[in-house]
Amino acid sequence: MTEMVYFDNAATTRISRKALDTYNMASDAYWANPSSLHHEGLKAKSKLEECRKKLSLLLTVPEDTLTFTSCATEADSIIMESFLWAPQCGEVLMPNIEHGALTGFTRLFRQKGWTVTALDAPHGFLDPEDVRSHLSEKTRLVLCMLVNNVMGTIEPVEEIVKVVRSFEQETGRKIHVHTDATQALGKIPFSLVSLDVDSAAFSAHKLHGPKGVGLLYNRNKAITALSRGGEQEAGLRPGTENLPGIMAMTAAVEEALDNEETNLEKVRHLNALLRERFSSLQGVTILTPLEKSSPYILNISTEKYPSEVLTRMLYDKDFCVSSGSACSNNAKQHQGTILSSMQVSPKQSRGSIRISLGNDNTEEEVMALADALSGLLGGD
Amino acid sequence: MTEMVYFDNAATTRISRKALDTYNMASDAYWANPSSLHHEGLKAKSKLEECRKKLSLLLTVPEDTLTFTSCATEADSIIMESFLWAPQCGEVLMPNIEHGALTGFTRLFRQKGWTVTALDAPHGFLDPEDVRSHLSEKTRLVLCMLVNNVMGTIEPVEEIVKVVRSFEQETGRKIHVHTDATQALGKIPFSLVSLDVDSAAFSAHKLHGPKGVGLLYNRNKAITALSRGGEQEAGLRPGTENLPGIMAMTAAVEEALDNEETNLEKVRHLNALLRERFSSLQGVTILTPLEKSSPYILNISTEKYPSEVLTRMLYDKDFCVSSGSACSNNAKQHQGTILSSMQVSPKQSRGSIRISLGNDNTEEEVMALADALSGLLGGD
Repeated sequence: MTEMVYFDNAATTRISRKALDTYNMASDAYWANPSSLHHEGLKAKSKLEECRKKLSLLLTVPEDTLTFTSCATEADSIIMESFLWAPQCGEVLMPNIEHGALTGFTRLFRQKGWTVTALDAPHGFLDPEDVRSHLSEKTRLVLCMLVNNVMGTIEPVEEIVKVVRSFEQETGRKIHVHTDATQALGKIPFSLVSLDVDSAAFSAHKLHGPKGVGLLYNRNKAITALSRGGEQEAGLRPGTENLPGIMAMTAAVEEALDNEETNLEKVRHLNALLRERFSSLQGVTILTPLEKSSPYILNISTEKYPSEVLTRMLYDKDFCVSSGSACSNNAKQHQGTILSSMQVSPKQSRGSIRISLGNDNTEEEVMALADALSGLLGGD
Repeated sequence: MTEMVYFDNAATTRISRKALDTYNMASDAYWANPSSLHHEGLKAKSKLEECRKKLSLLLTVPEDTLTFTSCATEADSIIMESFLWAPQCGEVLMPNIEHGALTGFTRLFRQKGWTVTALDAPHGFLDPEDVRSHLSEKTRLVLCMLVNNVMGTIEPVEEIVKVVRSFEQETGRKIHVHTDATQALGKIPFSLVSLDVDSAAFSAHKLHGPKGVGLLYNRNKAITALSRGGEQEAGLRPGTENLPGIMAMTAAVEEALDNEETNLEKVRHLNALLRERFSSLQGVTILTPLEKSSPYILNISTEKYPSEVLTRMLYDKDFCVSSGSACSNNAKQHQGTILSSMQVSPKQSRGSIRISLGNDNTEEEVMALADALSGLLGGD
């Protein structure tokens, strides 16, 4: 049996030893309900708040801005549903390149009477000037992801927020900026403080944490969740807290941030090796821009095969890559929308595959992938 | 150091060895994203559907009626939000004894123009005749939990649903009946088919499964989630599936149902021992009715101390009991509403404590609790 080679780290990652050990330890020692008032409950509650404290220090934001959720999708939903439920309608600026967890709300917003303005990202990047030209006195919400999950482009969130803040000052109206930073945390350095966003969504399983755990950063006190219940997480996310999962996520985030620079260096090197090999292969176009992209994602396109065919041939050689985001395999066509919004031609879009690297990939694996692709394309 | 004695199993339970082993095995062998199309993704997807199949057999319902969620609160929310979002308003029958995950939606329903009709549960039980008298052509949704989390009463869901179905036949209008069965699954026998409800919410951590995993049974095709994203779970619950958690929950449910009868017998015996000891203690009233209650929950009231004081004294002797539901410790007063809806006097309500048993409790533990309580009340 061949060992599979995993290049789908943007879809999910394997939980780290440390995170899994933490999960097991917590399941044994801190399994009580953090809302219970007995000693075991208080012990659990104190661990829960210790996790929030640790994450608040790691992310340099106040503790009360952090809410534990079950995934990034839920963190995104809390923000979106809160605006959907607002008594007044307005306008939301919605980049076409956002994850379905956000663009999926388009119909509901329109149904509720909101204006949803789609923004393009020519050559992979949103344009702050384009955002500025679309701001109006109706604008309530601006979305802008930090690292695009299909292309790996690092979007100019800081510049976009500056544009929004300056517009706010002119008009005296508050605009909420939300960033889905799922593909950024623990991978590329950023500061929530410098970004100056109002909220951000994160997921544990994208950075070797457990599945089923996410994190919402939010500093806008007007945000309320639609879910109701036991008032956990200051009412924003009711439901008994998944403390073993939260502790495992905290361990994973700490581990990822501690090693962020080393991992980044390593993945940059692997990415460069792939780029070097691919640029010498006939019929291969590297779609991910070299500048201002996360080295963790490399999107390429071949002329010879449609992406479903090429990815399947690679699967048969035990390589795990992707023809788009994993989520988009359920929701058809979304990936095409993202690439066309980035001005990737329909032809290149049809042949595109996403290679997403992890800090546990090796030079040998990268070379093996390049060899396999070269073989399939009849090159070398 | 004294070992704590845990009588708060309605708040949460310790994950079983088998469930935790399953979590670890899955984290190692099935960690890929079930939406990925490569071999590892397909392996994960197949395990996910295997879990759904197993649960569908255990619960004797079709596979496509089961949706994996992050908790029972989320399962409840999916149903509630779907009605909240419906274009037409109507009336919801909302028993006062429901969990906050449902009653917490009252204000939102009213805000949207719905009529929310509160129902009482005299002496602990909802009255099917009372439900019948409140049904109207505006009624769209009837809520009725299976086992009350504070009192342990088994509500007459089957009879209530019969009343609703017969009203439906008279009027030709569809009414959705939802049951929160969190305190019932794996503890008392029931059949979703006989209950004839349209949807039901379950939680893994109440039956020695992992935290952060729940299950929604729903056969009403008109239900849609507000959350959006990668179309996982047929669009009803987007977000990367927590497969290790789902596999652990499936193992826990299987284990609980396999041992349901034996455990029930054991817990009935422990409950009877407590009842016997408590009935001989002066100033103690057993609030949970003997008939038609789950033996897993025993609510008592003392004349001598308010519940917060007595529970604290018991905590100091390393007993974990509760003055209400764990969730209600965050949301003030909800517990009082439940007891007053059951016609428990304010005086008895103020002195009530909930003892919730588990299949891992022992005779010795039960005797120690009775002795401790007896000592604190100055009896024996």
